[in-house]
Amino acid sequence: MDYRLYAVTDRSYLDGMDLVTAVELAIKGGATIIQLREKYISGREFYELAMEIRQVTKRYNIPLIINDRVDIALAVNADGVHVGQEDIPANVVRRIIGPGKILGVSAKTVDEAQKAEKDGADYLGVGAVFPTPTKPESEAIGVGEVKRIKEAVKIPVVAIGGITRENAYEIIREAGVDGISSVSAVFAGDIEKNTSLLIEEIVRAINDRRRR
Amino acid sequence: MDYRLYAVTDRSYLDGMDLVTAVELAIKGGATIIQLREKYISGREFYELAMEIRQVTKRYNIPLIINDRVDIALAVNADGVHVGQEDIPANVVRRIIGPGKILGVSAKTVDEAQKAEKDGADYLGVGAVFPTPTKPESEAIGVGEVKRIKEAVKIPVVAIGGITRENAYEIIREAGVDGISSVSAVFAGDIEKNTSLLIEEIVRAINDRRRR
Repeated sequence: MDYRLYAVTDRSYLDGMDLVTAVELAIKGGATIIQLREKYISGREFYELAMEIRQVTKRYNIPLIINDRVDIALAVNADGVHVGQEDIPANVVRRIIGPGKILGVSAKTVDEAQKAEKDGADYLGVGAVFPTPTKPESEAIGVGEVKRIKEAVKIPVVAIGGITRENAYEIIREAGVDGISSVSAVFAGDIEKNTSLLIEEIVRAINDRRRR
Repeated sequence: MDYRLYAVTDRSYLDGMDLVTAVELAIKGGATIIQLREKYISGREFYELAMEIRQVTKRYNIPLIINDRVDIALAVNADGVHVGQEDIPANVVRRIIGPGKILGVSAKTVDEAQKAEKDGADYLGVGAVFPTPTKPESEAIGVGEVKRIKEAVKIPVVAIGGITRENAYEIIREAGVDGISSVSAVFAGDIEKNTSLLIEEIVRAINDRRRR
């Protein structure tokens, strides 16, 4: 799994563009994973949208992760599911999805991270690193805490929350994470350009980190 | 399966009583199936509530059906799941849950009913029979249409929507359904008394129907 640029969808940024097109642009630009995140649609709409998105991600051989709804992930045979601390507990999700699907878990403390790892998570989404408009209620933990969490677990860590083209380099290099995750830095504005500039920063940071 | 009195939960009717107590009273009064229906809580809360309710239903050996969220039904190993026309399609749900769990589907037309039966539904929730405060947007189809649907399928049919102690007899007797389903007629007011009076009407109607 390539966790470097983990794009999380949000249709509210798309200004009328359909999500399938937006996801394809993100992939063309360099997104390495797509997470489909939907909050206010019916199960049927979520299912139908996920079926469409799955066609694009399959075509480009990019993993599709479904946010929160384990049943939607199973229904469309997605590559995995991502749950937060307010969703069905990770160990229960692992039991439902079996060993073959990717399980991601959100964590904002070392305790949550280690518990998630023990509960069967394949990777962690850690943050919010910085304050973020996507989740205004999520407290920013800073780069230092992300680093501490990364060092406390063996599974890959993706940093999330308030990440921009400007700070992506610092996070990757300083926190030692496996990738960054973003909604707005990917989907607001020119999606293909956003992702290609982001992946450039990420690659540069990983290379510089290795050289140290 | 005994579909005679299918109680659908709604905590907004409980006036401070906890749902576990309310469900136990409904079962003591005569409810034959419990459906846990929750709309505005997190996956974690839904999971935890379902785990609690499952203990009560198990103790009384009453089937527990989860509304809409197939993942919650799998997570708590409920007896089944109920989906509407706006949820994940019935044939997909059947594939996810396997042959061992009960699958209920809402239908308000003969077409929807026959499709659900073909898609693997074990029973149908048909209505709204009468206008109902629980789903004000749901058009009332009347007893005659419920009867027509019941006659068009082989699987059990539970009538739902606007059912009261006063009209339960008529619906059971005239529409030929296997049971009635209600939120408010069960959970508003004295729950044990509500259910015991309802089941009395249902039994009387079924007996009178048989005698015809």
